[in-house]
Order: sequence, then structure tokens, then C-alpha cells
Amino acid sequence: MDFSTEEYAERLAATRRRMAEQGLSALLIADPANINYLTGYNAWSFYTPQILFVPAVGDMIFFAREMDARPGFRTSWLPLENIIGYPERYIHRPHIHPFDWVSFMLRERAVIAPAASGYIGLEMDAHFLSPKGYRAFVNAIPEWDFVDCFELVNWVRLIKSPAEIELMRKAAVVASAAMSVALDTIRVGARQCDVVAAVSQAQIAGTPDVGGDYPAIVPMMPTGEASDAPHLTWTEDRFEAGQAVVLELAGAYKRYHTPLARSVILGEPSEELVRVSSAADEGINAVMDAIQPGVPIRELVRIWNSVLWAHGLEKPSRLGYSIGLGYPPDWGERTVSIRSEDDTVLEENMTFHLIGGMWMKGYGYELSEPFRVSATGVEPFTSFPRRLTQIRS
Amino acid sequence: MDFSTEEYAERLAATRRRMAEQGLSALLIADPANINYLTGYNAWSFYTPQILFVPAVGDMIFFAREMDARPGFRTSWLPLENIIGYPERYIHRPHIHPFDWVSFMLRERAVIAPAASGYIGLEMDAHFLSPKGYRAFVNAIPEWDFVDCFELVNWVRLIKSPAEIELMRKAAVVASAAMSVALDTIRVGARQCDVVAAVSQAQIAGTPDVGGDYPAIVPMMPTGEASDAPHLTWTEDRFEAGQAVVLELAGAYKRYHTPLARSVILGEPSEELVRVSSAADEGINAVMDAIQPGVPIRELVRIWNSVLWAHGLEKPSRLGYSIGLGYPPDWGERTVSIRSEDDTVLEENMTFHLIGGMWMKGYGYELSEPFRVSATGVEPFTSFPRRLTQIRS
Repeated sequence: MDFSTEEYAERLAATRRRMAEQGLSALLIADPANINYLTGYNAWSFYTPQILFVPAVGDMIFFAREMDARPGFRTSWLPLENIIGYPERYIHRPHIHPFDWVSFMLRERAVIAPAASGYIGLEMDAHFLSPKGYRAFVNAIPEWDFVDCFELVNWVRLIKSPAEIELMRKAAVVASAAMSVALDTIRVGARQCDVVAAVSQAQIAGTPDVGGDYPAIVPMMPTGEASDAPHLTWTEDRFEAGQAVVLELAGAYKRYHTPLARSVILGEPSEELVRVSSAADEGINAVMDAIQPGVPIRELVRIWNSVLWAHGLEKPSRLGYSIGLGYPPDWGERTVSIRSEDDTVLEENMTFHLIGGMWMKGYGYELSEPFRVSATGVEPFTSFPRRLTQIRS
Repeated sequence: MDFSTEEYAERLAATRRRMAEQGLSALLIADPANINYLTGYNAWSFYTPQILFVPAVGDMIFFAREMDARPGFRTSWLPLENIIGYPERYIHRPHIHPFDWVSFMLRERAVIAPAASGYIGLEMDAHFLSPKGYRAFVNAIPEWDFVDCFELVNWVRLIKSPAEIELMRKAAVVASAAMSVALDTIRVGARQCDVVAAVSQAQIAGTPDVGGDYPAIVPMMPTGEASDAPHLTWTEDRFEAGQAVVLELAGAYKRYHTPLARSVILGEPSEELVRVSSAADEGINAVMDAIQPGVPIRELVRIWNSVLWAHGLEKPSRLGYSIGLGYPPDWGERTVSIRSEDDTVLEENMTFHLIGGMWMKGYGYELSEPFRVSATGVEPFTSFPRRLTQIRS
């Protein structure tokens, strides 16, 4: 296991404290990152339904497809008898769903503490809980009152342990190595796919000491006029003189992520790109300088906005989000967003991806910093220069 | 665009024919592969909610996050006014959902043909439609009757066009190149992550003529005793003498996939592995020999089972599935499964991943073939030898 028995026990205890606060007798967890967080289970099995039952009292039970459940002990510390496989015949059938079967088993085996409220929390906005799966539970267990748990386990994950921080530092080493490869290979005439192939190689090989894991998102690399579209990937086209390139990637280690974004101009930047990139760089630096425990997220946004406004610019999208454990399609934790609507106040060992992403018309610029809130300030996870990289051919 | 205007028009027409058969006035499509299939739209934006409205009559409307919608014209042929961005403030908020806003816009703009039934099809088991998103529609548009469309567009995708087949052949070239790299680098003493790094490099670089896209699933490589767990990825451990290695990967080209699996033994195989691998190889060969238009899927399963039974073995999991366009977390189309419960009869230009995966206790074996049903038989997409690869150190 990647963490001590005590750390897993504390994760479950913290989850149950929050369950008590929200009045929940049990949780049904579908998010693969939350399942991993509580049980260690790790496989690319989330394309078929799987669910973790977390009662307020008693043992957790994990349900997965038979071929994934039987060897589940290879990554999870759960005892064998608490990893249950549903039959293969429930896969991809129009009129039955694996959670029909799981519901039956839950009624047989699940113990809901009699003193509890009876509310059962579901992850109503998780990526891998479908409406069909949700309705299977609601229809098959009418005596349970299902409510949204509002990303309960995601919120438990917000403040990282020292062991988690250590994994994120290693992920950052991988992210830096991969970004270096990118900046060394983006050249006029090179194929976009060849650059990303080299980046992916660096992400997965890692270093001699730190073997890379797969990031939850592939490298995104909008290029040229399309650099205004942040979530484009790559093509087989060749880089052309004058193009701007935006690259966002992550290093991953044992499913922990440290994302990093930088931008490149192949030749001379336009006046507009100089203006936008300078403002973003200055804004990110100003925000980084302000980070310490006790500072509200909202204050970071105010600082960023004041820098941008001084340059006559604004950014409609959020300035970043909490990061850590993740599976495709997202390395964000879906809890704290760095935006004015967020009420969070920074605490030590929160970890974020701070993103100065400027999505203009026909061009874009992105510069980001992954960081940890330290006891007295900020620990940036990487030390990449905070500026537009100019590559002359 | 990767396909002609006529091909996109025919895709929409085929979708509407099936909608008429199922009595649907409109569809709401969340599956990124289905959105791509109908509109060309392609970005790693599916980690936030997005949805395509497909009315029986009138224009399709695509809704995505503002930063993804505005540059949507860079990959989609939809006219600008039919790609609508929802405001950033709806992202990751506990009490509001982007589909609240989308529902409002749909009531303003969507035209439901008066003669139609009024039923609106939802993809109730799609990966990227959450229960919260589903309930947003149901609550906000009470005058619409939502029903499951049962993977309607996925079923339209089942028979490939010549242009699609051409992309899959190119993906197969990439898959073969990546598998060759794996077999050349899996060696006692090599780190698992270094092998997968080289494989990923080959998948994304592709060949000088065919630049690789990202596969919907990363390489899976259960190793040693853990080779009984088909969906494990890799570790930073080094390969050891005597270990079995199961590798399943895909080549991808413009989002079309050709998966391929082979197994390796580092040294001498056990008697059990020889028995299981011989049976699986023989079974796959027998099935491949039987493929032609008019043959029921069920007959392929019968042939496979009869070979396995002759060896005293059985396989509880399905023997494969339909393949083509795909996004994480799955390159399968979620329509036809090769299993006895399936009623499909083979037709020309159906494409499948045929998988002889044997998940035993403490070891596993997998050998697969991606294929197209041709006019008179079968076109295997790759020509890799169908056997266990033995690597002596």
C-alpha cells in the first residue's frame, strides 16, 4: 500500500465525521479517486459500474465487475469478503444494470445503524455514476432515502497529509521533466504529435527514482489560431513560424497529480500577446506572493483582477482549483475553485493548480503554478520560469 | 473536417430514422464520441457538462462551457450560432448545475415538432451524464417526457463507412508499431514504466504518414501474479524472470481505435499457461475462420466455447465488443458484445475487438484481434502472430 494503515483509518474516520455532520447513515461512492482514497483500489476498471458502500458503522463493501473484483486485493487493503463481483451478464445490457444486482446484495448485507437518520449519500455529480445507475438504486431500495452527498469525500481530501505531499512533490519532478522535453522539442517544422509523444514518454518514464503514472488528462496543446481553445489536444500538423503554442500537462505519481502550463511563441510575439502574457505573468506572481494560511480564496482573485484591470484585461473563467488524487477525465478535485464565489480560507497543506489562462480570439496564453500552502506562505511545486518562452527558428 | 458534408448529413439522417422508430421527438446526447460523430466536435472538454440537442426536425444545438463553446467551430461544422456556451459560474457548484441554464435555453430555442410524440431521449447510461445533470433536465422542463434512448447513436455507429474503415486501418498501423515496441522492450530488469513510456511514445508519434491520437484507455499491463487482473496499468517495478505479462493497448487515429492484446512470458511458461494460451490461441483462430456476413454473434461464441471445453476450460466474460470512435474511459462502443445473450447477426463493415482473455488465479493470458467483417469473410486489422511471446533473458 502507498499509505500506512493509520492513514487509511484516519481517512475513513474523517469521512464519517463529515457524514455525521451531513446527517448521513451511509455513502455510495462512485468516483474512482474517492474509492482509491478510502481503499487503495486502483485499476482502469471505472468504464464499467463500480461502487463503494461506506456505512457510518461497520465495514465498507466494494462492488465491481467480477473480473475486477476477484483480484481487487492486489491494490486494495479491503478484506476479500468485502470486495464483491457482480456477474458479467449485467454489462452493457439495455434493460438491466449492475446496480440492480448490487442493490439486492446491499439489502442482504448492508447494515444501516438503527440510530442513524436513514439518509444515504450519493455522488450525484460524479463522472462515473450514470442516471441509469442512480435510478437502479432508487427503484430497488425504496426504503432508503437517497440524497446528494455534495462531493463529501472530495472535501475530505482537501487538506493533504505529509505522505500525500511527498507524492505530489515527486509528481512535480515528473511534470518539470516533461515540460522541459516539450520546450526542447517544439520547433518550426516538428510535427505536433512527435512533440507530445516525447512529452508522454517523459511523463510515464519519469526519472530513475520516480516512475511516472498516467495523468488524468493527456497533454493539451492548442496551437496557432486554435490556441484560443484551451482543451484541444494535438494534430499531426507541423509547427509553423509565428505560431503560439499553449501546453498544459501534469506529472502523476501513484495517481497524485501536479499540473503545469506554459506557452511558447515560435518567433516574434504580437503586441497583443506581449500585453496579455505580461499581465498574466505579473498577476500569477502577485497571487503567489499573497498565499499563506488565513488568506481567503476571494483575496487571491481580487489581487489577480486588480493586476489584470490595470492592463485593461479581464478573465471570465476561474483562476484554478484544488488538486491531488485523480483519474480521467480530470485531475481537479471538484471542491475549491479559485474564484470570487468561493468562501474557502487557505489552510496549510491545501494544494492548488493556479492558472493564468487567457482565452482571447484567435490566440491564447496560459501560465500556471501548482502549489502547496505552507505553514507560513507558499511552496511552489515547480521552479519553471514564469514567462512566455520564445523559440527562434 | 475528417469526413465529407454528405457523410455527416447521412449520420444525422440515420440517427433520425432510428429516432422515428423509437418514437423520439428529440435526443440529448452527452457521450463525447456521439457528439463527435454527429458534429465533428473534438476536445478534452467532457470533464465539464456538455450536451448536444438533436431534434427530429430543425438544427442541432451544442451546449458547452463558455471557454469550450466559443472556439467550438475549430473542430465542429456546426454554425457558430448553434454552439452555445453556458456561464463559467455554473462549474462545480453544489446547488446549481450547467444543465439548469441549458434547460432554460432549450425552452427558449428548441423546437419540438408538433406532430412528434413528445418523448425526449436521454443517454441514461452514458459516462458523462451525471444524475445531477439528468435531474436538472427533468426538474426544469416538466413538459418534456424524458426516456432512455438506449445508446441510440452508438447503434447508428455500428456499421462503418469506407472513410471510417480507412481511419481504423491507419489506427491499426499505429497499434502494430506500439505492440512491436513493447515486445522489443519487455525484458527482465527493465522498469515497467519505461516499457509503457516507449509504447506511449509510439502510440502518439505514430508513423511518418500517420500521426497518432490518444487512445481512450492507457496501456494496461498486469504483470506476474497480478496478470490475473485485466485492468491493472503499470508500476515502477522491474520485470523479473518467470513473470507473465499481459499487454492490451490501442492505436488511435482521429479518435478511431484499433485495440490489440498480446501476452509475454519472461522465460519458461508453466504447464498451466501453455494449456490456457494454446486453448485461447486455437479458439481465436477458430472464431476468426468463421466470421462472415450472416453469421450470428452467438455462433462465434459457440465455436469459442467448444474449443475451450475441449481443453477443459471456460471463459465467463464476454469475448469482445464493437469498436470505432472513442473517448476515455472506453474504446468499446457499448452496443454489440460477443456473448451468447447477443442477438446481432454479422454484417459487412461491422468492426470488433475479439478478445481471448483468460483470467485465472495468479496468472492470466490475453490474445486479441481487431477485425472488420468484409463482404465475404473477415479483414483482420493487424497481422501479429497469434501466440504467447516467449522472451528468454
